[in-house]
Amino acid sequence: MLSWLTGRSLRTDEARSEQLGPVTGVPALGLDALASATYGPEAALTVLIAAGSRGADAIAPITLAIIGVLALVFLSYLQTISAYPNGGGSYTVAKENLGPAWGVLAATALCTDYVLNVAVAIAAGVGAIVSVVPALLPHTLALCLGILLLLTVVNLRGLKTAGAIFTAPTYAFIGSLLIMIVAGFVHPPRLPSPPAPTAATAVTAWLALRAFASGCTALTGVEAVSNAVPVFRPPEVRHARQTLTMIVITLAVLLSGIAWLAHGLRLVATEPGQPGYQSVVSQLASAVFGRGAMYGVTMAAVLAVLCLSANTSFADFPRVCRLLADDGYLPATFGRRGARLVYSAGIIVLAGFAATLLIAFHGVTDALIPLFAVGAFSAFTLSQAGMVAHWRARRVFGIHMALNAVGAVATAATLGIIIVAKFLEGAWLTVLVIPAGYAFLRYCGRLQSRLARALAPSEPLSLGDVQAPIAVIPVDQVNRAVLKAVRFAVSFSDVIYGVHVVVDDDDRPDAVASDWETLVENPAREARREPPRLHTIRSPYREVIRPLLTVVHAVAKMYPARTVAVIIPERIEPHWYQMWLHSQHATLIKIALLMRGGPHVAVVNTPWYVAEPADAAADAPPPMEEADLG
Amino acid sequence: MLSWLTGRSLRTDEARSEQLGPVTGVPALGLDALASATYGPEAALTVLIAAGSRGADAIAPITLAIIGVLALVFLSYLQTISAYPNGGGSYTVAKENLGPAWGVLAATALCTDYVLNVAVAIAAGVGAIVSVVPALLPHTLALCLGILLLLTVVNLRGLKTAGAIFTAPTYAFIGSLLIMIVAGFVHPPRLPSPPAPTAATAVTAWLALRAFASGCTALTGVEAVSNAVPVFRPPEVRHARQTLTMIVITLAVLLSGIAWLAHGLRLVATEPGQPGYQSVVSQLASAVFGRGAMYGVTMAAVLAVLCLSANTSFADFPRVCRLLADDGYLPATFGRRGARLVYSAGIIVLAGFAATLLIAFHGVTDALIPLFAVGAFSAFTLSQAGMVAHWRARRVFGIHMALNAVGAVATAATLGIIIVAKFLEGAWLTVLVIPAGYAFLRYCGRLQSRLARALAPSEPLSLGDVQAPIAVIPVDQVNRAVLKAVRFAVSFSDVIYGVHVVVDDDDRPDAVASDWETLVENPAREARREPPRLHTIRSPYREVIRPLLTVVHAVAKMYPARTVAVIIPERIEPHWYQMWLHSQHATLIKIALLMRGGPHVAVVNTPWYVAEPADAAADAPPPMEEADLG
Repeated sequence: MLSWLTGRSLRTDEARSEQLGPVTGVPALGLDALASATYGPEAALTVLIAAGSRGADAIAPITLAIIGVLALVFLSYLQTISAYPNGGGSYTVAKENLGPAWGVLAATALCTDYVLNVAVAIAAGVGAIVSVVPALLPHTLALCLGILLLLTVVNLRGLKTAGAIFTAPTYAFIGSLLIMIVAGFVHPPRLPSPPAPTAATAVTAWLALRAFASGCTALTGVEAVSNAVPVFRPPEVRHARQTLTMIVITLAVLLSGIAWLAHGLRLVATEPGQPGYQSVVSQLASAVFGRGAMYGVTMAAVLAVLCLSANTSFADFPRVCRLLADDGYLPATFGRRGARLVYSAGIIVLAGFAATLLIAFHGVTDALIPLFAVGAFSAFTLSQAGMVAHWRARRVFGIHMALNAVGAVATAATLGIIIVAKFLEGAWLTVLVIPAGYAFLRYCGRLQSRLARALAPSEPLSLGDVQAPIAVIPVDQVNRAVLKAVRFAVSFSDVIYGVHVVVDDDDRPDAVASDWETLVENPAREARREPPRLHTIRSPYREVIRPLLTVVHAVAKMYPARTVAVIIPERIEPHWYQMWLHSQHATLIKIALLMRGGPHVAVVNTPWYVAEPADAAADAPPPMEEADLG
Repeated sequence: MLSWLTGRSLRTDEARSEQLGPVTGVPALGLDALASATYGPEAALTVLIAAGSRGADAIAPITLAIIGVLALVFLSYLQTISAYPNGGGSYTVAKENLGPAWGVLAATALCTDYVLNVAVAIAAGVGAIVSVVPALLPHTLALCLGILLLLTVVNLRGLKTAGAIFTAPTYAFIGSLLIMIVAGFVHPPRLPSPPAPTAATAVTAWLALRAFASGCTALTGVEAVSNAVPVFRPPEVRHARQTLTMIVITLAVLLSGIAWLAHGLRLVATEPGQPGYQSVVSQLASAVFGRGAMYGVTMAAVLAVLCLSANTSFADFPRVCRLLADDGYLPATFGRRGARLVYSAGIIVLAGFAATLLIAFHGVTDALIPLFAVGAFSAFTLSQAGMVAHWRARRVFGIHMALNAVGAVATAATLGIIIVAKFLEGAWLTVLVIPAGYAFLRYCGRLQSRLARALAPSEPLSLGDVQAPIAVIPVDQVNRAVLKAVRFAVSFSDVIYGVHVVVDDDDRPDAVASDWETLVENPAREARREPPRLHTIRSPYREVIRPLLTVVHAVAKMYPARTVAVIIPERIEPHWYQMWLHSQHATLIKIALLMRGGPHVAVVNTPWYVAEPADAAADAPPPMEEADLG
């Protein structure tokens, strides 16, 4: 139906397989990590606004600390890549080494992080747009939702050309930021008019801690390579490790370069979401390049990389959902690929969550940052704790285990700092959401495993004492649809009840009983068959469903060995949009019979196509497609 | 489910019948007309704001003109009452005398008017509240929607005590306004500080015409008595005519009294929806009484009468919908009374429309007024044109016909003035909505009469060559639910196909064929039955529905004389909120089979109750209610 939007269906064997090397791997898997070089320093500097231009002094040590944590995380993941050549995402590593419950927890943390990554990257991208065109500031949220919608549609179509789309912007982004840093080093610029610090306070330890906690969002996305080892060219592990190394070194260079420039320029961030807002990268680029072509190229590359960074979540979130569905923690829908070979259910759920976040936080990056890093650092910690368990199980106690243990402790400590420093500003929400998501997935898993146990056949088909069903037909009026239902009932049953519920609501004479005699009973007698009996029930409360259920239960009790087939004629209009005309009574009756009829009741729908009675095609089937039943 | 909100179900014979006399008739049927004495003059005076205090000079002649139209409408309706002792609403009168199309047009106009009456009365009531408590002004819309919700719930419960509820506020309203007028006559007050006219223009003819058009909303509700003649005590016609006379005289007195007071006080209306807004009645009452107890009583009576006036639409709109449903212009749902003996569908639709209007116009009376009178005057005109046709058909050409003809011309002329004077301010919306509603009702009527023709049995049940159905069972995996379905299929058919659609999406080995052999075919052979065959189809595009439909069509073609019963096992979770876990595939398959399977396909649902396999009750029916099948 929506194929004009999502494109033609793709055959399963059209699934492409990519083979990455380090040069293609950096854009494909590193973009997310590199993009955070824009909003990480910005987040730290926004916290430091309170310190006015004195904040610029603090940015250097804070960035050093962040790069230190990055180094530890990097060394840990190098080991994960070697240990999990088939892909070691946090879910897999935690599940296999710490147990399924920890795996589910890691998956929840990861998914939270993916949702936030979409929201933060889009919000930061729009932040870049409004830095260039301040007139768009009032339309921040609309721009965010527009980009989200675009990404959702593009991902529902599936990205065939993903590789190419990623490469150019990524290298343009790295290149222009590096040029900016080098140019700023060679010709140190001056900010045109450094905003006067309004009520600048000293940089207290608490302020520095909060800036560090915010700045740690720069580390998000580093885990991507370890999830995707099999997509590399052989030797996969070596290529993956090379790629990760290149990504981390580039990220570290960008982070320290931006910090150093900000320090040299005595840069003060602007208040996000307020008039006059300009992103940190925009401030730096315009100071170094002026508002010329290079500024335009830089900002365009930043925007592109941020949007594509949101896009990587669209690839990863559905994949984690698929793993969860395969293990029975999510409904099977999340494990099925749609017409375009993508996991549509996961994409739609991700888009829904991200839209909710963007709306709730008005599309302002700064408001989302406190929520962000909690999920990522939870997943880091669980993944590395899993690696420690991995080494212990293999009795490898040396440098390997030590590195992962140090990594686990460092990321856990950082997680603690983030939660404490950012709790009131929004981290509490993530701290609530992750356990709630965890509980939901576990509940879901319990339901599904109960279902699987209940469905498993304990014995083969038993065909002793199979008896023909009883037919029950609710009769509102004796019309052609009901006659068709009776004829169908006669074809499989010798005991047929018509049930007419008289809704005591008008004074019109009720012709059903006499019609039934003329149109049903007499012809049956003439054909020498047992005439179907009509039961008439008065319903003083004008209900239909309850009296009908009572009759069905009574019939089921009278014939305990036989199934009661309740036949509901269904009127089918020529066009679906005409269906609303019909009362939803039939649907409600079906639901009530299925939910409360008991296991010995079957609900039978006989379609009756509405058309002019003169139309000979009225009872003919629609055009058929041929099938070979060989 | 919602019975705690709507109250216990009522038996049909609990329907009450009221018997009104003139004293009880005035509140029960006149409240709506009398309530418009508050917003009619207010609407005229709001137009005259442009003329500043000079507007007060114009209000007297404008009110005279309005009372003139009222007199003509009154005389016309006196005749309608005599001619239609069983109730002559506009729909009935126009339908019987001018034809069904005009009846539907009158009904559309009436329904539009009822919707607007709810919105305008609630908005005017909230206008009274914010006049008393100006701090509530920013919450205008929320107050409007709150009152609407309350009225909706109360009406879904049904109003047993309607009569009593109406009497006290109506007489309090008439009494306090009369006291205000008399007191203002005896001791002419002065407005504390007459607002300085900002840019007062002269009262041009155009301004006076627009004020007249707005003020004509004072006439809405006058038709109520003529609809309801049968609810009076005998002699019904006389009592009805007395009641209408009393209502119209009271209305005329209130209108002229208010106009005279406004004139004397040189009153200038305040800008609606703006800070400092105060309704005209509030200005008058506080000028005459001061802000004391009498002011409070007056405003409370105004508020109560306005809310109850909205309530009368809740009684009348569903009744018109019921008439339309009886004549086949609306789905039958609108003609059925719910558990509380009210026409729930009509109430809900009315509330939905009124809420939309209130939201769109921010709950400001003044913005709704231009839309209002178009519907009422269309219905007046059609009703009176119908009466002219009525007399002509009976060859009564004298004073009777003349009166109705003059009435028809006067209301048609007023309608013209309203449309022209108010077109740009909102009347265009009503001018669009009424034809659209008309077209919708006619379309609906065509669909329903086509359905009735198509359903009418042309011949009795024919039982020649009835053959047992073929069974087709979609098989995803061979589980207990499928085995139950196979067992059921065996009970009525000797030809059974299992259809397994292999979705080419994962590499897991497909065990369905071997399971089918072990669990289905072998036991069937042992029971000396034809073993059900399994057809396996590969689906390269991962679709399930299309391949299944293809098979069903092919089977239907192979056995043209037999019905193909497709058995869909339905997993029923213990709690409804667990149902979402299951893929909606089963539902989509059912819809596709019904809509596109053709007339020789029946869809059979066999419920399968999910429970622990150890649980012995798993296949037992839920507790039964007893029914006597005598």
